[in-house]
Amino acid sequence: MKVPIILVNYKVYETSYGKRGLEMAKIVEKVALETSTEIIVAVPATMITRVAEMVSIPVYAQHVDGVPEGAHTGAITPELIKDAGARGSLLNHSEKRVRMDEMDDALKRMRKLGLESVVCVDRYELVAPMALLKPTAVLVEPPELIGSGISVSKARPEVITSAVDEIRKVEGVYLVAGAGITSGEDVYVAMKLGSDGVGAASAIMKAKEPQKVLLEFVNGAIRALEERGGR
Amino acid sequence: MKVPIILVNYKVYETSYGKRGLEMAKIVEKVALETSTEIIVAVPATMITRVAEMVSIPVYAQHVDGVPEGAHTGAITPELIKDAGARGSLLNHSEKRVRMDEMDDALKRMRKLGLESVVCVDRYELVAPMALLKPTAVLVEPPELIGSGISVSKARPEVITSAVDEIRKVEGVYLVAGAGITSGEDVYVAMKLGSDGVGAASAIMKAKEPQKVLLEFVNGAIRALEERGGR
Amino acid sequence: MKVPIILVNYKVYETSYGKRGLEMAKIVEKVALETSTEIIVAVPATMITRVAEMVSIPVYAQHVDGVPEGAHTGAITPELIKDAGARGSLLNHSEKRVRMDEMDDALKRMRKLGLESVVCVDRYELVAPMALLKPTAVLVEPPELIGSGISVSKARPEVITSAVDEIRKVEGVYLVAGAGITSGEDVYVAMKLGSDGVGAASAIMKAKEPQKVLLEFVNGAIRALEERGGR
Amino acid sequence: MKVPIILVNYKVYETSYGKRGLEMAKIVEKVALETSTEIIVAVPATMITRVAEMVSIPVYAQHVDGVPEGAHTGAITPELIKDAGARGSLLNHSEKRVRMDEMDDALKRMRKLGLESVVCVDRYELVAPMALLKPTAVLVEPPELIGSGISVSKARPEVITSAVDEIRKVEGVYLVAGAGITSGEDVYVAMKLGSDGVGAASAIMKAKEPQKVLLEFVNGAIRALEERGGR
Repeated sequence: MKVPIILVNYKVYETSYGKRGLEMAKIVEKVALETSTEIIVAVPATMITRVAEMVSIPVYAQHVDGVPEGAHTGAITPELIKDAGARGSLLNHSEKRVRMDEMDDALKRMRKLGLESVVCVDRYELVAPMALLKPTAVLVEPPELIGSGISVSKARPEVITSAVDEIRKVEGVYLVAGAGITSGEDVYVAMKLGSDGVGAASAIMKAKEPQKVLLEFVNGAIRALEERGGR
Repeated sequence: MKVPIILVNYKVYETSYGKRGLEMAKIVEKVALETSTEIIVAVPATMITRVAEMVSIPVYAQHVDGVPEGAHTGAITPELIKDAGARGSLLNHSEKRVRMDEMDDALKRMRKLGLESVVCVDRYELVAPMALLKPTAVLVEPPELIGSGISVSKARPEVITSAVDEIRKVEGVYLVAGAGITSGEDVYVAMKLGSDGVGAASAIMKAKEPQKVLLEFVNGAIRALEERGGR
Repeated sequence: MKVPIILVNYKVYETSYGKRGLEMAKIVEKVALETSTEIIVAVPATMITRVAEMVSIPVYAQHVDGVPEGAHTGAITPELIKDAGARGSLLNHSEKRVRMDEMDDALKRMRKLGLESVVCVDRYELVAPMALLKPTAVLVEPPELIGSGISVSKARPEVITSAVDEIRKVEGVYLVAGAGITSGEDVYVAMKLGSDGVGAASAIMKAKEPQKVLLEFVNGAIRALEERGGR
Repeated sequence: MKVPIILVNYKVYETSYGKRGLEMAKIVEKVALETSTEIIVAVPATMITRVAEMVSIPVYAQHVDGVPEGAHTGAITPELIKDAGARGSLLNHSEKRVRMDEMDDALKRMRKLGLESVVCVDRYELVAPMALLKPTAVLVEPPELIGSGISVSKARPEVITSAVDEIRKVEGVYLVAGAGITSGEDVYVAMKLGSDGVGAASAIMKAKEPQKVLLEFVNGAIRALEERGGR
C-alpha cells in the first residue's frame, strides 16, 4: 500500500458491474497512471477476475470470510479472492459487519496469503482495538455520513484527529478516512488532519464525470502530502 | 431445469477454485455431454465467470443476497451473478442460512431476472412453506448427514418421502434430495422415493475419480427415471 | 387465545420496565376487566415474572430462542419464559428476526409446553408459509408503518385483505394486523377487513392516556365483531 | 468486582431456572458467605429478579444488547437488567457473540449505569483489543474446551499466560480464565498463571454436589492468592 491511499468502493451500484463496472475501472486506472498515484478499487466478488485482468491498478474484494477451505457454501475466502486476482479486501464495512473473532481469523489467513486488508470502523474508539489485529489499514467512517455528500472532513474533523491519535498507539497500520468525501478539498482536509488517505464510493460511482472527481481527489491528496512534506 | 436434477455444490474445497476448479467443471461437463444429462455446478462467486465462459453446463452461485442495487458493500445480488454468467443460485444452504423475508426478496428479484433458484431446507416441514415462495426447486438435506458419507436415501428415506408429500401441495416446484449422497444407488433410491434429483458436494469434490462417481450418479438417476416411466 | 386479539407490545420504552412497566400492566388489566376482553402484554424477558405475578391478563415474551436446554448462554428458551409466568411469545418481530428453521424449532417446543405464539411477518406473502408451521397466530405488519402513526388499516388495507386470504389457506391460525394502529377506528377497520385483532406498541406505550387509547381500541374491536356477528 | 473472581455461568440447564435455579443460587451464596468470597452468578434474563431478591451475591445477566431505549422488540438492554436487579453482565460469550460496535455501545451504556461487564474472548489475541473498550474484566475461553471437562489450566496454560501478558497492556481490567475448569486444582493453576479468577458453568450446574465443587474452587483460588501474596 502506498500513501496517499485512495480507495474506491464499488458497492453494488448499476455502475459497479458488467460493462459499466469495467469502464469505471478503466477510468480509475487512467487517473492513477496520469498522476502516478495508486488507486484501489474494491469490486463485487463476481467482478474481481474481470477487473484484475483488464487493469493494472490494485483490485480489492469488498468482504472476505475468515473460514478455511472446506464445507462453507457461499463463503468468500481469502484463498478465493487471491485466486481471482485481488490484492486485498475491505473488512467489516458498516454494510457488512463481522465479529471480532471472524475478523482475526480472516486477517490471519490474509497475512499468510500476502493479501492487504482495510478494516472499517464506525468510530474512533475502535481504531486501536482493530489496529492491534494488524490489518494493513483501518478506515474510519461515521456511518451517518456515508453516502450523504457531507464529508467527515468538514462535519466531523474530530473523528479523524481522534482516529489519528489512536492509530499512533499501534505501529505499522495506516489510517484512512471516509464517509461523504466528495471533493478534492475533502481529501485535502482529511489528509492534513493526519490520515493516510480516503475511501469513497457514491461520489465516484454515481458521478457524471467520475474521472474529473477522482482527479480532484488525487490532487487534493498530493497537495496535502506536499504540505506535510511527505511526497 | 430438467429432470433428473443433478447439482454439484463446489463449496470451498481446494478443488473448488483456480485451475482445479476449472478442471472439475470440465469433468462435470464431459459426463453431462456423454449422458445427455444436465448437471449443475454451484461455484464460488469469484469463479462464476471463469467457469461459465469455459463450459456449457449451467453454472449457479452458492448464495445470493436479496438486496437491490445500491449501497450494499459485499453483497452478492441476483444482478451480479446473472451478469457474471450464472443461470441460478442455491439459497439458504445450511452453511449459509437466510431469513424468510430476505429469501422472498431474493426470489422475487431472481424471477424478474429469469434466474433459477434452489432453496435448501433441513427438514421436510419446511418444504411446503418454502415452495409457497415459488423457487425453481426445494432441496431437502438433513444437516447431520451432510458430508457424512451416509446418505439420506439409506439413513432417512422418510425425509424424502415426507418431502415429496409436501412438495405436491404446491404446484410447479421441483424436489431435490441431498446429504451424504455418495453412490449411484443413493441417487437411484432418492429418485425412486419421488425426488426429482439430488445434490452432492464432497462425494464429487473430494473424490479421487470424480468423473466415475458422477457417471454412477447419472446412471442411477436414469435408471430410476426409466422405472418411473419419466424418460 | 380469544377474538378480538389485542396485543400490546411493550418493546423497550421508558414505560416498559420497572415501576412504570408495572403501572402500564395495571392499566391494561383494568381495561381488560372493564370490557371483559382479553388483552395481551408482550413484555421484556426481565419483566415477565413481575408482571405475571401482579396482573391476571396474559403475559407474553417478545422473543424466544428455539434452542433446547443446555449450553446456550444468553438464550431465552420456551422453558424459561413458561417458568417465568408467560403464556406465550411474539416471534420474528421485524426488530428481532429469526430464521425459518429456528422458528420451527421454537414453535415445536412452544406447542409441547402449551405456550401460545404470535409469529410476525412483514408482508402478506409470508402469511401462509408461516401459518404452515402452526403458530397460534400470524401478525402481519408492514415495517415502514411501524411506529409511524399511519395505520395499516388506512394506508395499506390491501395488506390486511391479502393476508386474510392467505391465512384461510391454513386451518386454525389467527390473523392479527399491526403497524401504525393508533385509534379505535384503525382497530375497527382492521377487523372489518377480516383480521382477528390488532397489535400495537407506541400508540399505547407512549400515550399520555394509555387507558383511554386502549379503551377505544377495545370498543373498535367490539363494534367490528358485532357487525360481523362474531360476538 | 473483587479478586478472586469466581463466576458461575448458569447457561440454560435444567438446574438454571425455576425452583432448581433458585436452589442453586442459595448453594452458591452459602459457599460465598462461608468463605467470605464474592461469587457471581450469571443467570437467564427471566431469572434475574427472582435470584437477586433471594440472595446477596452479585447477579449478572448472560448477555446484554447495546441498543438504547426505544423500538427494540426482544432486546435485553442494560437498563432492563439493572432494573431487574443485576449488577452486571457477561458479553460476547462464544454462545452469544456480538459485533465490536455493538459491544462498545453496550459497554458505554453499562458504565453510565454503573454496571459491571465481563467480555468473553476465544483467544488471547483479542484480550487487549477488548480491554481497550474498558470492560470490568475480560474472560478468555478456548471454545473447544468449554464444557469438555478438560481445563484450559492443564490443556492450554499458554492461553492464560499469553492473555495475562495482553491484559497488562491496558490498565484497570481484570483477566478471568475459563473453559473446562472442573477442580480446585484447575482454579489454583489458572490463578497461579496470573489470572484474577475463573469462570465455570457445567462443572457447577451439572454437578451432583455443586456446593462441594464450588468450595474446592474457592479454596484453590484462596491458596493461589496466598502464594501470590494477594490476600
